[in-house]
Amino acid sequence: MSQDVTAFAQAWLPRIEAELRAQLAPPPSEAAGMYALLRYHMGWEDAQGRPEEAAQGKRVRPLLALMAALAAGGDPAAALPVAAAVELLHNFSLIHDDIEDNSPTRRHRPTLWTWAGVAQAINAGDALFALARLALLGLAEAIEPARVLRIQGVFDRTCLHLTEGQFLDIGFEKEAAVSVPAYLTMIAGKTAALLAASAQMGALAAGASEEMAAHFWQFGHELGLSFQVQDDLLGIWGDEAQTGKSAASDILTRKKTLPVLFALAQPGADAAALRHFYTASGPLTPTDLPAILTLLARLGAREHAAAVAAQHAQAAQAALAAIEGDPPGLHLLRDLALTLLGRHT
Amino acid sequence: MSQDVTAFAQAWLPRIEAELRAQLAPPPSEAAGMYALLRYHMGWEDAQGRPEEAAQGKRVRPLLALMAALAAGGDPAAALPVAAAVELLHNFSLIHDDIEDNSPTRRHRPTLWTWAGVAQAINAGDALFALARLALLGLAEAIEPARVLRIQGVFDRTCLHLTEGQFLDIGFEKEAAVSVPAYLTMIAGKTAALLAASAQMGALAAGASEEMAAHFWQFGHELGLSFQVQDDLLGIWGDEAQTGKSAASDILTRKKTLPVLFALAQPGADAAALRHFYTASGPLTPTDLPAILTLLARLGAREHAAAVAAQHAQAAQAALAAIEGDPPGLHLLRDLALTLLGRHT
Repeated sequence: MSQDVTAFAQAWLPRIEAELRAQLAPPPSEAAGMYALLRYHMGWEDAQGRPEEAAQGKRVRPLLALMAALAAGGDPAAALPVAAAVELLHNFSLIHDDIEDNSPTRRHRPTLWTWAGVAQAINAGDALFALARLALLGLAEAIEPARVLRIQGVFDRTCLHLTEGQFLDIGFEKEAAVSVPAYLTMIAGKTAALLAASAQMGALAAGASEEMAAHFWQFGHELGLSFQVQDDLLGIWGDEAQTGKSAASDILTRKKTLPVLFALAQPGADAAALRHFYTASGPLTPTDLPAILTLLARLGAREHAAAVAAQHAQAAQAALAAIEGDPPGLHLLRDLALTLLGRHT
Repeated sequence: MSQDVTAFAQAWLPRIEAELRAQLAPPPSEAAGMYALLRYHMGWEDAQGRPEEAAQGKRVRPLLALMAALAAGGDPAAALPVAAAVELLHNFSLIHDDIEDNSPTRRHRPTLWTWAGVAQAINAGDALFALARLALLGLAEAIEPARVLRIQGVFDRTCLHLTEGQFLDIGFEKEAAVSVPAYLTMIAGKTAALLAASAQMGALAAGASEEMAAHFWQFGHELGLSFQVQDDLLGIWGDEAQTGKSAASDILTRKKTLPVLFALAQPGADAAALRHFYTASGPLTPTDLPAILTLLARLGAREHAAAVAAQHAQAAQAALAAIEGDPPGLHLLRDLALTLLGRHT
């Protein structure tokens, strides 16, 4: 991370955490136990309710919201309710995704449903969804009602967009052929929508005009698309030490990510051979990997995906360049994008 | 139903349905299929997407909202976004409850998860939650922003309250001893909160003062508690033809409802014998029923629950009586309560 991004994160992460923890404080009621489930999911407590310092997320969405507020010429503090709301919404979606994907662990701990059961985990996710909305309502303390309503509209449409992306993602698992455009629609909802909304809502909370806020939305959207395609590349060609996942894990699970979908859609014998691997019954094994990697290489899958990622990364920077003047905070967003897209360390 | 309630329902149900259907119209996107899942759940389409007239809910919550708007001295039309929002929220909770309770059918059709799978059903429920919020935002077209924010605050806290009730309900299944106060807290969240909020938000949408709106909240809250306890009574002593469930079904499933919890908490040999039935391993069978019903009778379980239901029904009517003047619509709420509580037919 650039020095400035690191300094910004160090300055603001404690306030983001305080905002998040305030939302999940246990009420003095019979239902206090539900909040313990949520604090477990957030990595703040273990299953016995003891304080824990488990690995947490990087808080990318809250930081994006606060940096956008600064870059829109405002005080990042004005966007703290947005920061809390987007992080809680993100975590709501993680709780439900883990059930939907049948994932037993997250960040080296049992997922919430593994520990508390599916029923309580679905319901706790719903509670976190409601808490995200309540966090956003905190905007009304300092911002005029009409602007709060406008920000809520962005938030609610983003929630819906997230579920549309997830609908497609779940459906893809069962579909024999997924088109590249359908895939891009899916990641626009599942990954890019909340990053885009985080930046846009942060700017709006700081008083940005609709026109200016649209640039922030575009930045987050392009950043999200680029980030997801980079993630797809790492899922096949990533360094195990860097990703924490075994090399080529996305191939062994036949995950339909951009490089694979692009390759499967090509004409000719190589694509046909690849389709054979992806439609055969029975699991793929490491002994299949060399042949599959050779086919992907011959079909130019890696180059294509890398070009798509680069194109969206450039579009993200172009969205920032469209913001007039050089407000403080704009370079932070530029650096954050470079960090997320792996060009910085 | 009283003639006036019937006439009101006939006049307004078409507009409520139009408002609901507008929210679930399929967008021209790859994700249109998600909306088909929701229209299936609502009973408007079958699994092939063909129009269907499956049994739908009675739309109690939307009618409550519109009647409250009228009783608060306003135009019921002002509360149509509230009506749509509370019905969509109710249906979101049904979709998730059916998964959490492992219920295969609802209104004589396969539940959404039975048809579409757990993953898609969780996600479709989340989408309906977001759509409920978007429906509520429709208030901003005609109502000043500060009042819309106030109504949204009621709605969001109600969503959280629902999940707290559901948390307790799920937990009760595993607990050996559930106290009567804990049970009442559970139904206050799971059943009464949304009825209370429907009436309160309907009144607020029509311009009611906070003080007046609080009476409507109280009415819905007491109505909800009374209704749930009546439902508990029917689950044990209800007429099979009337309830659609087999007689004493709540006993055979060892469901922890008020009559049972009250009886289990009594001192003496009868309660001990009852506890034996409720803690024994192995399922209960119809041959156990006569003994259990005798114990419940000796412990006064039915009388106690009936008294609790009557007390809350009276409190509901008292909340209405506190509303000054005799605004049009007030007698509709009075009659609706009598209908729901089974004193009318």
